[in-house]
Amino acid sequence: MSLTPKFPVFLHGGDYNPDQWLDRPDILQRDVELMEKAHVNCVSLGIFSWALLEPEEGVYQLDWLGEIIDRLWQHGIRTILATPSGARPAWMAQKYPEVLRVDAHFRRRHFGERHNHCPSSPVFREKTAAIDRALAERFASHPAVILWHLSNELSGDCFCPLCQQRFREWLQRRYGTLDALNAAWWTGFWSMRYTDWQQIEPPSPEGQMSNLGMRLDWRRFSTDQCRDFIRWERDTVQAVNPELPVTVNLMHRFWDYDYFALAEDIDVVSWDSYPEWHTKPEIETAAEYGMWHDMMRSLKDQPFLLMESTPSLVNWKDVNKLKKPGMHLLSSLQAVAHGSDSVQYFQWRKGRGGAEMFHGAVVDHSGRDDTRTFRQVTEVGLALEKLQAVHGAPVEAQCCILYDWENRWALDMVQAARRGDMRYTETVTAHWRELWKRGISVDFRDLRACTDLSRYRLVIAPLLFMLRGGIEEKLRAFVEGGGTLLMTCFSGVVNEDDLAFLGDAPHGLTDVLGLRAEELDTLGDDESNEMRFADGRCGRLIRLCEVVVPQGCEAVAVYGSDYYAGQPCLTRHAYGQGQAWYLAAEPDAASLGVVYDELLRGLSLPRALNVPLPEGVVAVRRGSAVFLQNYTGTRQRIGLPHPFRDLLTGQEAAEFLLPAFGVAVLEER
Amino acid sequence: MSLTPKFPVFLHGGDYNPDQWLDRPDILQRDVELMEKAHVNCVSLGIFSWALLEPEEGVYQLDWLGEIIDRLWQHGIRTILATPSGARPAWMAQKYPEVLRVDAHFRRRHFGERHNHCPSSPVFREKTAAIDRALAERFASHPAVILWHLSNELSGDCFCPLCQQRFREWLQRRYGTLDALNAAWWTGFWSMRYTDWQQIEPPSPEGQMSNLGMRLDWRRFSTDQCRDFIRWERDTVQAVNPELPVTVNLMHRFWDYDYFALAEDIDVVSWDSYPEWHTKPEIETAAEYGMWHDMMRSLKDQPFLLMESTPSLVNWKDVNKLKKPGMHLLSSLQAVAHGSDSVQYFQWRKGRGGAEMFHGAVVDHSGRDDTRTFRQVTEVGLALEKLQAVHGAPVEAQCCILYDWENRWALDMVQAARRGDMRYTETVTAHWRELWKRGISVDFRDLRACTDLSRYRLVIAPLLFMLRGGIEEKLRAFVEGGGTLLMTCFSGVVNEDDLAFLGDAPHGLTDVLGLRAEELDTLGDDESNEMRFADGRCGRLIRLCEVVVPQGCEAVAVYGSDYYAGQPCLTRHAYGQGQAWYLAAEPDAASLGVVYDELLRGLSLPRALNVPLPEGVVAVRRGSAVFLQNYTGTRQRIGLPHPFRDLLTGQEAAEFLLPAFGVAVLEER
Amino acid sequence: MSLTPKFPVFLHGGDYNPDQWLDRPDILQRDVELMEKAHVNCVSLGIFSWALLEPEEGVYQLDWLGEIIDRLWQHGIRTILATPSGARPAWMAQKYPEVLRVDAHFRRRHFGERHNHCPSSPVFREKTAAIDRALAERFASHPAVILWHLSNELSGDCFCPLCQQRFREWLQRRYGTLDALNAAWWTGFWSMRYTDWQQIEPPSPEGQMSNLGMRLDWRRFSTDQCRDFIRWERDTVQAVNPELPVTVNLMHRFWDYDYFALAEDIDVVSWDSYPEWHTKPEIETAAEYGMWHDMMRSLKDQPFLLMESTPSLVNWKDVNKLKKPGMHLLSSLQAVAHGSDSVQYFQWRKGRGGAEMFHGAVVDHSGRDDTRTFRQVTEVGLALEKLQAVHGAPVEAQCCILYDWENRWALDMVQAARRGDMRYTETVTAHWRELWKRGISVDFRDLRACTDLSRYRLVIAPLLFMLRGGIEEKLRAFVEGGGTLLMTCFSGVVNEDDLAFLGDAPHGLTDVLGLRAEELDTLGDDESNEMRFADGRCGRLIRLCEVVVPQGCEAVAVYGSDYYAGQPCLTRHAYGQGQAWYLAAEPDAASLGVVYDELLRGLSLPRALNVPLPEGVVAVRRGSAVFLQNYTGTRQRIGLPHPFRDLLTGQEAAEFLLPAFGVAVLEER
Repeated sequence: MSLTPKFPVFLHGGDYNPDQWLDRPDILQRDVELMEKAHVNCVSLGIFSWALLEPEEGVYQLDWLGEIIDRLWQHGIRTILATPSGARPAWMAQKYPEVLRVDAHFRRRHFGERHNHCPSSPVFREKTAAIDRALAERFASHPAVILWHLSNELSGDCFCPLCQQRFREWLQRRYGTLDALNAAWWTGFWSMRYTDWQQIEPPSPEGQMSNLGMRLDWRRFSTDQCRDFIRWERDTVQAVNPELPVTVNLMHRFWDYDYFALAEDIDVVSWDSYPEWHTKPEIETAAEYGMWHDMMRSLKDQPFLLMESTPSLVNWKDVNKLKKPGMHLLSSLQAVAHGSDSVQYFQWRKGRGGAEMFHGAVVDHSGRDDTRTFRQVTEVGLALEKLQAVHGAPVEAQCCILYDWENRWALDMVQAARRGDMRYTETVTAHWRELWKRGISVDFRDLRACTDLSRYRLVIAPLLFMLRGGIEEKLRAFVEGGGTLLMTCFSGVVNEDDLAFLGDAPHGLTDVLGLRAEELDTLGDDESNEMRFADGRCGRLIRLCEVVVPQGCEAVAVYGSDYYAGQPCLTRHAYGQGQAWYLAAEPDAASLGVVYDELLRGLSLPRALNVPLPEGVVAVRRGSAVFLQNYTGTRQRIGLPHPFRDLLTGQEAAEFLLPAFGVAVLEER
Repeated sequence: MSLTPKFPVFLHGGDYNPDQWLDRPDILQRDVELMEKAHVNCVSLGIFSWALLEPEEGVYQLDWLGEIIDRLWQHGIRTILATPSGARPAWMAQKYPEVLRVDAHFRRRHFGERHNHCPSSPVFREKTAAIDRALAERFASHPAVILWHLSNELSGDCFCPLCQQRFREWLQRRYGTLDALNAAWWTGFWSMRYTDWQQIEPPSPEGQMSNLGMRLDWRRFSTDQCRDFIRWERDTVQAVNPELPVTVNLMHRFWDYDYFALAEDIDVVSWDSYPEWHTKPEIETAAEYGMWHDMMRSLKDQPFLLMESTPSLVNWKDVNKLKKPGMHLLSSLQAVAHGSDSVQYFQWRKGRGGAEMFHGAVVDHSGRDDTRTFRQVTEVGLALEKLQAVHGAPVEAQCCILYDWENRWALDMVQAARRGDMRYTETVTAHWRELWKRGISVDFRDLRACTDLSRYRLVIAPLLFMLRGGIEEKLRAFVEGGGTLLMTCFSGVVNEDDLAFLGDAPHGLTDVLGLRAEELDTLGDDESNEMRFADGRCGRLIRLCEVVVPQGCEAVAVYGSDYYAGQPCLTRHAYGQGQAWYLAAEPDAASLGVVYDELLRGLSLPRALNVPLPEGVVAVRRGSAVFLQNYTGTRQRIGLPHPFRDLLTGQEAAEFLLPAFGVAVLEER
Repeated sequence: MSLTPKFPVFLHGGDYNPDQWLDRPDILQRDVELMEKAHVNCVSLGIFSWALLEPEEGVYQLDWLGEIIDRLWQHGIRTILATPSGARPAWMAQKYPEVLRVDAHFRRRHFGERHNHCPSSPVFREKTAAIDRALAERFASHPAVILWHLSNELSGDCFCPLCQQRFREWLQRRYGTLDALNAAWWTGFWSMRYTDWQQIEPPSPEGQMSNLGMRLDWRRFSTDQCRDFIRWERDTVQAVNPELPVTVNLMHRFWDYDYFALAEDIDVVSWDSYPEWHTKPEIETAAEYGMWHDMMRSLKDQPFLLMESTPSLVNWKDVNKLKKPGMHLLSSLQAVAHGSDSVQYFQWRKGRGGAEMFHGAVVDHSGRDDTRTFRQVTEVGLALEKLQAVHGAPVEAQCCILYDWENRWALDMVQAARRGDMRYTETVTAHWRELWKRGISVDFRDLRACTDLSRYRLVIAPLLFMLRGGIEEKLRAFVEGGGTLLMTCFSGVVNEDDLAFLGDAPHGLTDVLGLRAEELDTLGDDESNEMRFADGRCGRLIRLCEVVVPQGCEAVAVYGSDYYAGQPCLTRHAYGQGQAWYLAAEPDAASLGVVYDELLRGLSLPRALNVPLPEGVVAVRRGSAVFLQNYTGTRQRIGLPHPFRDLLTGQEAAEFLLPAFGVAVLEER
């Protein structure tokens, strides 16, 4: 089933801001012509239109929006309709300053910017529901409106008195008693014991930052605040038309909220992807964003929408580079390969003013349709039409990586090892990349949601510092049942309350792994150790070196230097029907490749193409199609074992010549 | 006519703080003896004397100041008299806290530091006028008092409620209606529409920083606030004696206010110049400060005063270096060469305490007159006496560079390309340097004031992002009339409201230039492109590379790599009687030299000396004198086409041997 | 006499937090067993126990603490008892927010963290005295309690209205009149004159930071505030038992308070030492911490206690490294060599939560006693038992370095030279290191306390910018009486009020040194000069180069370049019976060695061992024992002139083979 049942095709289009041009009907008319020319079939409307939709309190002006939707619809262009809560009007901030967020220093923000409302404010909730209801009543059953886009890029926390009080109530629900809270937060430390719920404030540089349990709970609470606000908007609009699905647009490497939890409250996952092409080897950028495409697909275990991307360049980085020829199509189809059912842009047309007036757009200030950007966008539109067979198709994975927001927060806050630089997400990316570059599909699961590990043959659990949700038992069962597990150092250390387990680590898994961890050494940026395999191969170990005591495991590789030279750094242990691997140190990128060569040998996981690919070329399978992607700046000739057909060109061959930054979408003949 | 009609000679002296030594009459007496010995003829008095001039509210004690002025006058030493508004007394801050500035976070400052009054505060205005009036009535007609020095190094903004209200009134005058303001500020973006003037606050990290039109207007308003305060003081003192001119001391690379606008309210431009000699190649420092001397001369198109410079070193840099032998005279005469009618120092004598107790002074804590510094200062005094013929003389230029504060602000704020690193001022300096090192005199004009372009044969307009004041028509007429124009990339993009022009760029000049700009690529610090000329010469392009579409222009050079290899990066277009050049990319320093070789070929602009000079040696003409300056650390032998006389030594020759950091002032025989 | 008369042996143990484990009697029982096994004989208790000792206002629960003390005592383990003022309970912050500190921005802190009370708050004083009295009445005469540990790691300032008022009163006592204050603070500068005591606020980024006299006085006042609070606690507990000594635990390179002054109020100096082993050459780390051990011994001219150190690693650095085998014993005995009568740890057992849950501990989360850390700790316990002869022994020094907190503050604040980077402490360390690596014992004295210079044969006074306490006369007398003095550049510049002396510098010592200083040049990081000796040896000069005018001194070395090439940079002058040396520039580390070779030649100061030692090996004498320390990662064979006995191993020999990071404690046979 399609994410947008009313329009079950690849969406192509993006954010459209006609509200900035209402005094220029000529331009609004021209927009529709240009959209048709660019093979655009769907736009997002109304994201920042509150001031125009409700120019004064309680006075709604929706006609202009209706006219835009209708005109687009007449040309077959669908609308993703936004609720405008991403930025409230000035009159509201003036009359009800409590809608403004309070920062971590307990200072109320002044009016300005965006994405900074207080999610607790009753008046903000009331105003949001009213405008949302008005929009829904007018547009929710419009045939052109295919999806709700709730608010925009939700982020951050509010520290106002109301949110503080909600935090305390949240804590009361979680812990019941202050004794339980004091135990979980280990308040015996530094005399932090609470004797009255009212003593508790959120973590702040003005007060308490050393209570890690509190900081972790604040993140959980902030996630719940955001989810509560999403549900408030969702329920408001779906009360009018329960059939119209909702999404919120998520972000890259986002930290503030647990996206696995948040995804439960929306029908469709969508996200905004802005890779920084041409700033480092493209394959690294591709890995970074490919992983997040997989993450977005995994959040709800279904396809997702690429809600924003740039048709040319962005304007908010320090160095804003153009995409070179080919890269726009390649980057767009990478998203599709990993599960996207859309290629949407920010933005259709550059505004004349505002902080994003120079953000890339399909239509530049020149208004021309003969620009390189316009041609490239048209090319993507055409390509998507040719790929309709892939629309809605799943990505089938036999490998799963555990990635958990709560573990991430705990590692980012941990006061140990490389404090503030534990690189959990980077480490997960490094492991994902070893599978991706071999054409092996990967799902992500967090600790709460991984009830289906038996689907997989290989589970990777990098830096699994925190255990929660009984994950240690799930992993044990997975290995016992024949699965292969890879864990790494500093794992099984704390429980869900961020309290250290007593006894040997990794907690609950020492028998599965056949070892216990004794000491964690930390290396500076200019230090390294060596990983030595029995057959003479060597690798380089950096940053983290754990000293483990074998209890039945086999040493696959040992340390090469320091006082723990000769002790194992990579181990394997047969357990039940499966195998448990332990990587006690952090290898550099090349050395991690050697680890994966060892790990994958004998597993024979399915790969997108069973041919070796040149460095910088990757193949990703979605449904029946293989997306062959050339991230190098030179032509690449790829020989295949048997003929394929390129859905983009129609070419059938057993050898394809990809131009620089070229892509082919192959189906077996 | 002299800037200081009562004393039409080069001023030599500087800031004198006898108020710190009133309990040491021996030292005050010694000061006058030492001044005479050092050939000092003018001091600045009373800059920070408010607490002493008005020790309690309404009680004025001016006698000590009168005695100082008189004693100096008896020895022929003139006084530049300051108004003391640069730092108010503690009693005023205590009784009227509203005189203290409010910062951008809306926090009222506490008492302390300097240059931080609220320019709107009625009580501060009243107190300032009262002390200024008292000073004027006592001293404005004193024969020794030759100039008013209003306040000190004016800078910054105030965010207090009064200033906020004045901002709103200023906006009402500028825009008339909120509709006009909303249009100019493009408030359709991010739902920023204002519906009540009271909703508007100044740009602040606590509220709004993404409204670029607002930020630009805040700079204009701050300039007007400062000008209004200057006029308040000027009118107060000139009400007593309309004949006595006023100055304010300006600063290097100053950003906060539009100096071209501000200069309209003062009679004399003066500035404080502190080159960081001996920290990089001296010629770079000389270029940096030489340009600002030219800028100061251009502000009112007349000579200026060097109001502050150090006799030895400063104390407020991270590494405070001594000037090597020779550099003090050379640096002082550089100012004179570019139009200064003075060499004034901060400071005459080091105080025993205070944050500037180690700032270089003519007289050190030792009190000695046999120090190297004292000797060097005396040498400058003697030199100025020999150069009296140059006093008041103009610098004649046939070349003009456009430098515009509003364009600068817009580029510094622009959210695009190399965001926050557009280097407008650095780019202008680079272009200025190519002319300066060839001995070609240059004026600066801003967009508002350049009504006289027909005076020039060459106009350079680097990074002319914003067009205002009809500059595009002025440039068109200039070229049409036979002038040569050089423009560079990212020009003609926005109007005075910082709103992008619709249609092709550079707006209004595509026919003059014979091209349109299509895309602006941005390079990282480790990237470059190549500039290739038809004759094989090459240059290196960095940071900004614009892709242009020729429409009649001739490609003088093309890009060497990337997908736009072969497309023009330097073009020439005949238009009317003149020529319009376009430099689409940013060359490195050496490559800009090649561009100027091309540009200047055939223009035959007059040069200070028609001989090639060694690297690091420059010649600058003022009036009939040529200042030959050796910024290298070695002796340089300069052969001339015919004999000159060195006004400093009296030597007549056709060859001069300049010592390291040496200078000669040549007149043709 | 012992620092802890009730228990006159080396203390071995550390911070123990049973309060975090009161619900785990099994663990508390296990702790005692493990302590005995580890040869632990003393713990610190109650440092952060206030919330547990007084769970609600006025309700004291001391029984749990009594039980712990008793149980330990039954096993021979002594207690250092803390007062809990390092962190107040939440109920107190809630009911009396005035106990919370106000920061330099005049913002009251919220509850959280530690070491942040207001020292002026009457209610905090009252509550502290009450809990201290309760603890004293219960435990001060307990046979196991051997020392009071007042508060914890005292630091910082409070800017609340009460502290501000105390600052004004402190100033009134210091200066008597505003005229005197205005003179001392040189308020003629920038119109800063005060006319009402109430106008004075502490130095703050929100107000005044440019009044250096004020900033200096604020440091003196903050020291006095801290001392006053220490005396408040000391007098409270000693009112119950005057015999029980008190300590406060001091810190490395600590800036906020004058430790020489503060030490007057305590009976025993103790400190917390956390060397960052294995991050740079170990000998540099050893020098850094060895110097601070000597400093701690010098504060009261008696042995001190090492109150905290880590048994393995810390958790609060960016890179937290394990100590390699051998380093724990070596590092512990380094403290003993320089005068420590203890080796105490933070912490006995890792907590399950809290910001320090991963700080190294004797007992890890695993609870094991077979870890490397546990074995290393046990080794130290055994070693201390073998060294009992050294307990309480003095370090005899014939060399003294002047190190003065007020001079340090003045140099850190100075607005000159390398502003903010004067490296006073680093410079002192560099000089100390030259003596230490030659086996020469060194005392420190500050300017106030150096009434006993005649004890020494050599006095080093690096960067003696400020003269106070008549030090110039003391130094003159010292040299006159036959002593050797080494001074360096930028000395004798300001008086106790931070006001420059008038006349030649170094003030009061030009005749002793036979020179005057004229100019101070400052070099950037990429610049250097040369130091040339008559015999051809050369050195490298960096950062600071003073130009001096000889007045009778002999040039030992001269500058090699710049305009002051050939002028002296190292001089010697015979004065009275002694010699005064002046080092006008800053040599790099190797070149300072050459200076010391010259300086020490002929002085024949006693050395710990009269044999040359390999690089990285040092010998330090305490009492009759010589601690031979190998800071290299390789074995070192040390030949001695005659047989010694190693107190650790009992080995007697004239040659010792030290393993990597090995240590021997030698006594002559």
